[in-house]
Amino acid sequence: MVMSKPIKSRSKNLKRRKRLSPAWQLCMPMTAIVLLFWSVAAVAQEAAPPDPTATLTVGLDTVWVLLCAFLVFFMNAGFGMLETGFCRQKNAVNILAKNLIVFALATIAYWAIGFGLMFGDGNPVLGTAGWFVGGADNSPATGDAYEGIFGALNWTGVPLFAKFLFQLVFAGTAATIVSGAVAERIKFVSFLIFSLVLTGILYPISGHWIWGGGWLAGMGFWDFAGSTVVHSVGGWAAFVGAAFLGPRLGRYSQTGATAMPGHNMSIATLGCLILWLGWFGFNPGSTMGVGDGAAIAHVALTTNIAAAFGGVAATFTAWFYLGKPDLSMVINGILAGLVGITAPCAWVTVPWAAVIGLIAGVIVVFAVTIIDGMKIDDPVGAISVHCVCGVWGTLAVGLFSQGPDGLIYGEGGGPAKGLILGGGFEQMIPQIVGILAVGAFTLVTTAIAWAAIKAIAGLRVPEEEEIKGLDISEHGMEAYSGFLKEA
Amino acid sequence: MVMSKPIKSRSKNLKRRKRLSPAWQLCMPMTAIVLLFWSVAAVAQEAAPPDPTATLTVGLDTVWVLLCAFLVFFMNAGFGMLETGFCRQKNAVNILAKNLIVFALATIAYWAIGFGLMFGDGNPVLGTAGWFVGGADNSPATGDAYEGIFGALNWTGVPLFAKFLFQLVFAGTAATIVSGAVAERIKFVSFLIFSLVLTGILYPISGHWIWGGGWLAGMGFWDFAGSTVVHSVGGWAAFVGAAFLGPRLGRYSQTGATAMPGHNMSIATLGCLILWLGWFGFNPGSTMGVGDGAAIAHVALTTNIAAAFGGVAATFTAWFYLGKPDLSMVINGILAGLVGITAPCAWVTVPWAAVIGLIAGVIVVFAVTIIDGMKIDDPVGAISVHCVCGVWGTLAVGLFSQGPDGLIYGEGGGPAKGLILGGGFEQMIPQIVGILAVGAFTLVTTAIAWAAIKAIAGLRVPEEEEIKGLDISEHGMEAYSGFLKEA
Amino acid sequence: MVMSKPIKSRSKNLKRRKRLSPAWQLCMPMTAIVLLFWSVAAVAQEAAPPDPTATLTVGLDTVWVLLCAFLVFFMNAGFGMLETGFCRQKNAVNILAKNLIVFALATIAYWAIGFGLMFGDGNPVLGTAGWFVGGADNSPATGDAYEGIFGALNWTGVPLFAKFLFQLVFAGTAATIVSGAVAERIKFVSFLIFSLVLTGILYPISGHWIWGGGWLAGMGFWDFAGSTVVHSVGGWAAFVGAAFLGPRLGRYSQTGATAMPGHNMSIATLGCLILWLGWFGFNPGSTMGVGDGAAIAHVALTTNIAAAFGGVAATFTAWFYLGKPDLSMVINGILAGLVGITAPCAWVTVPWAAVIGLIAGVIVVFAVTIIDGMKIDDPVGAISVHCVCGVWGTLAVGLFSQGPDGLIYGEGGGPAKGLILGGGFEQMIPQIVGILAVGAFTLVTTAIAWAAIKAIAGLRVPEEEEIKGLDISEHGMEAYSGFLKEA
Repeated sequence: MVMSKPIKSRSKNLKRRKRLSPAWQLCMPMTAIVLLFWSVAAVAQEAAPPDPTATLTVGLDTVWVLLCAFLVFFMNAGFGMLETGFCRQKNAVNILAKNLIVFALATIAYWAIGFGLMFGDGNPVLGTAGWFVGGADNSPATGDAYEGIFGALNWTGVPLFAKFLFQLVFAGTAATIVSGAVAERIKFVSFLIFSLVLTGILYPISGHWIWGGGWLAGMGFWDFAGSTVVHSVGGWAAFVGAAFLGPRLGRYSQTGATAMPGHNMSIATLGCLILWLGWFGFNPGSTMGVGDGAAIAHVALTTNIAAAFGGVAATFTAWFYLGKPDLSMVINGILAGLVGITAPCAWVTVPWAAVIGLIAGVIVVFAVTIIDGMKIDDPVGAISVHCVCGVWGTLAVGLFSQGPDGLIYGEGGGPAKGLILGGGFEQMIPQIVGILAVGAFTLVTTAIAWAAIKAIAGLRVPEEEEIKGLDISEHGMEAYSGFLKEA
Repeated sequence: MVMSKPIKSRSKNLKRRKRLSPAWQLCMPMTAIVLLFWSVAAVAQEAAPPDPTATLTVGLDTVWVLLCAFLVFFMNAGFGMLETGFCRQKNAVNILAKNLIVFALATIAYWAIGFGLMFGDGNPVLGTAGWFVGGADNSPATGDAYEGIFGALNWTGVPLFAKFLFQLVFAGTAATIVSGAVAERIKFVSFLIFSLVLTGILYPISGHWIWGGGWLAGMGFWDFAGSTVVHSVGGWAAFVGAAFLGPRLGRYSQTGATAMPGHNMSIATLGCLILWLGWFGFNPGSTMGVGDGAAIAHVALTTNIAAAFGGVAATFTAWFYLGKPDLSMVINGILAGLVGITAPCAWVTVPWAAVIGLIAGVIVVFAVTIIDGMKIDDPVGAISVHCVCGVWGTLAVGLFSQGPDGLIYGEGGGPAKGLILGGGFEQMIPQIVGILAVGAFTLVTTAIAWAAIKAIAGLRVPEEEEIKGLDISEHGMEAYSGFLKEA
Repeated sequence: MVMSKPIKSRSKNLKRRKRLSPAWQLCMPMTAIVLLFWSVAAVAQEAAPPDPTATLTVGLDTVWVLLCAFLVFFMNAGFGMLETGFCRQKNAVNILAKNLIVFALATIAYWAIGFGLMFGDGNPVLGTAGWFVGGADNSPATGDAYEGIFGALNWTGVPLFAKFLFQLVFAGTAATIVSGAVAERIKFVSFLIFSLVLTGILYPISGHWIWGGGWLAGMGFWDFAGSTVVHSVGGWAAFVGAAFLGPRLGRYSQTGATAMPGHNMSIATLGCLILWLGWFGFNPGSTMGVGDGAAIAHVALTTNIAAAFGGVAATFTAWFYLGKPDLSMVINGILAGLVGITAPCAWVTVPWAAVIGLIAGVIVVFAVTIIDGMKIDDPVGAISVHCVCGVWGTLAVGLFSQGPDGLIYGEGGGPAKGLILGGGFEQMIPQIVGILAVGAFTLVTTAIAWAAIKAIAGLRVPEEEEIKGLDISEHGMEAYSGFLKEA
């Protein structure tokens, strides 16, 4: 036998509340934990000899959730390559460094407070327990459970640490979305502070409303894998950040917008394929369990179908409007389809998944144009992909859901029948409320955060550093030493 | 409980036949589905309360098949990086775009008609049901099964959508193989049309003969994971495509062949390692189930051993004949070993897997030389790797199989004892018939397809565009903006 | 049913001993197997009808171990991209070729003799059976087991081939660690020979002491996933290799050290993220089984936490001391945290994992400086990351382990309570003995190996070839054809 006793080194009594101040002393979380963990008592208790079938079920569910978490983790590489490739060479080191450190910071912030705010016992607005993942373990093996909120959600029984890791990689995704939109001009330290605030405080609060048993969950808003929870939150934060920062030097002039082509389409395309791969963890893993395999297979298929239709739709839309099959539009179309299917993936049939992806692929092409027309400079199209298509995917739940009798996922749960399928506005209304509430909350709070960071540390690098490139000025190195570059 | 009812939103009554015409209106599949899916009725029915062990078994098998499908999906990134890196910089965007969109198109074509042609009920030549994956679900949870053909194949019980996804990523592989051989001179749109025809019609038909219960399966031809079904089909199609297109400008002259070195060995090597990783899904996943773990471990090991021996054999063969350990030969040797072991991986012992890989690694070095001598210009060596070694791997089943008493995989099934092990020609004869039949079918039908596309849309870009590079002419962008390049 | 009989094509009677002579005729293993495998008799025997729960358990464990092995395999791509990116362009092909072929060679050497030396029946110093993985299969399905040693270790019951594959990818890791430290000046053939010796003989012997039931295991030394077994062994070998080779031309002069910046930070960062992903196989997979999921979730979380704290700590340490957030230090800090947590990951709480990672991140910054001050030229920091932090991680077991009552992993097994937790020196003493013993053994034996290779084949390329770059001189090609480079 490999293991027969559950992990018990986390105390249920740990109820201290800690808020990380978003100051530039980023090492505070580290010192905080050094002070804190001595209070984590190891409470040993006896577990009843487990039923072999129950052990196997939780074991299989844990394997599934962990492997999906690993795939979602790998999306950090996807975002990193995509964003770096889509930006200019002189800022490559900066973008790589941001994308690499941001998940490390997200880990610390979400571990220390984010997970507690999002999933801890509390009230409909935020969780108020479970700091440092010090909550109860509700795995069947321990027979324990978060009270109240998790009971209501009927969450499955994988070990707490597996749930945490899965949720952590989602939180990390929200922060990397922002990275792309603010690239090539933001100060490194300012981005790090914002990432801590987003993953430690803001993302968890609106997430609590939906996945933590909060008020939006209570009114019947549904978002299976995070079109709103993750993507639109990241997208709204990106929008505010790009607006606060202003466009890159020389991007817009009286004669119009100047294209600033990315420097490495090979790694950008690789990034897109890594993201597509990661989405097979993102969506199917959000079942948090395997059951008889039907739901995970269904979600994997709707996810892939939407990606394919999104990619093809964007390719031909761009081909028709721009005259060429633009590679960056193929990439963004695939991502648009993936973001669009994220909320409804478990509750719609495969043909409707195709429609959702197809529409997302068309939307993204025009969204890029419109946002560019607003002179919001988003080097990688993050706002169009994640915010606009995140909103679309959330609406799609209200339009295309099979409803509780559709039997695609769950039993008695899930969204009501969609508008197009004859369900009227029953599901549309909470979806619209959710979109507006999360959008407004994120717009306001990230605006406050960006403004505070601007006041404390400044947002934008000096003009001469931007011209020279952030790699030399911020990091003292260049990405491609030995290659000759254009002046 | 996460899920307790199977997916039922697919009608068994859906029997319409649709053939996609390979015209340039690529959006036809999309419109087709919009017309079609309203007929997909959601038929709810009660399932008996499942035996927990049966649920766990199908759940575990589904997890395995899906995760292996994700790994095979990732081979798209492997092929993309390999092919792009092996070609010239001025065509990088074009190759990346081809490799990215091709899987999206394969998804649509294989979903709409390919899977039905390959695995639907029908006759020994092709399937005639199951369009839009609208067939019956034969998972144990539903107690349902494809009649006839699948009964004969005794296929395991993962949900239909998991099977489809696994088969889809295989179909995608066949199309990407072609991409490499026709690179740097084919028109973008023509490649897209060919990919639709290949994945939607041609690949499924010969696949039906072998994996769909068709006539080759009936006469005892065996191909475990697709040396013939996938690799040689892709390789033959690549051969015909490269022959139709002719060599790249300046490749062959009276003074001999001019080397056209690839522009990015870093991503090419990354691509090789991604492909190797993906093959751990390709071969072991083809068990379509886990059982007691012995078979999947066996297949994973034979796969890895053959790759290693292929890589080492090609390295030293090239070192001996060319005087240098050529990196592209290391890469192609590994891939040769992998293609070679794909058909026999479940039926041969580990030492024989070493021999199969070793011989594949030697073969590929000479095949590259011979095909180059034929003035068939294959920039990445796809024909040598996938067609020649695919044939070799298929023969290897007839040479080295342990036979039904060898107990490596299955019980009573699988190929007869191989020639080298004293089994005579019993297994060799069907293998040779299968190689010839699939080769002839693919040569003829892809020749018709390439000729039709040539007549309708043209195959090759104009000479000045080829000189300038396809990135600018076809896509209006370049892959490495900001770097200085040779004229 | 997919499979119902275990693999039986391996004879227990196969007891021949073969030592591979480290001569330059690298194809010897290949010929050896051709001579040998005819003696591998297929011994068929009847298995009792298996209990469905037992079959499911071994099936699930096998899926877990194999998928983790695939992730660790993918670390070859991580090391390859990291090392290539950190070195100069003119040596990129050489580094890529080394990193690609080394796993193929490791496969052959570890299959032929390494696994037998490490895990075969034998004595406390080395195994003396099980060549060509020809040992007994101790999966529950067969009811068989390695006698003695495995009984003592109470190893779990996945099929022998799954165990072998998992151990093989670890052995491969040890060899790739060396690759980075000796880059940009070693002769290709000499590196290949060393890799064969390391993975076939030296790594297995010290590994036997710890994981093969040898004398260090007997005295209570614990290393969960290989801080010592894999990383410090690779690191010591790298140290000796770098010392034997001497620094790259122009690296150190009277005026101090000259920085030789890497040529591709994009792929280096990708490599770091691939390694981080791979570590989710490396550490959690070392459970070799799933159980109720608690242990694998725990290990996955401690691994990730240590990586995050390592990355953040190194970033801010470097920022403070060097004035800039250096990307290569972010990367090495993450890897340092990962190496540090590798030994203790299963036996420490999450807060202690944070501390272990944090300290590793600080250590690595100073280790790089100190090793550079010793004029040991290690282009990628492999010695600092793998050797120094491998030692640190091994000590951390003695400092922070929860002890047998801590119930984190196993029952009654595992290390004693750590020094900091009040357990005194009980666990520290065997840890220190193990560090010194493995360090001394690896220093001495690799020094002999490097010296022998130097005498037979030479170690270093000629000066003019080093200046010109190894790509042209050793491989006759360049990595980035078509790009203009600095002279």
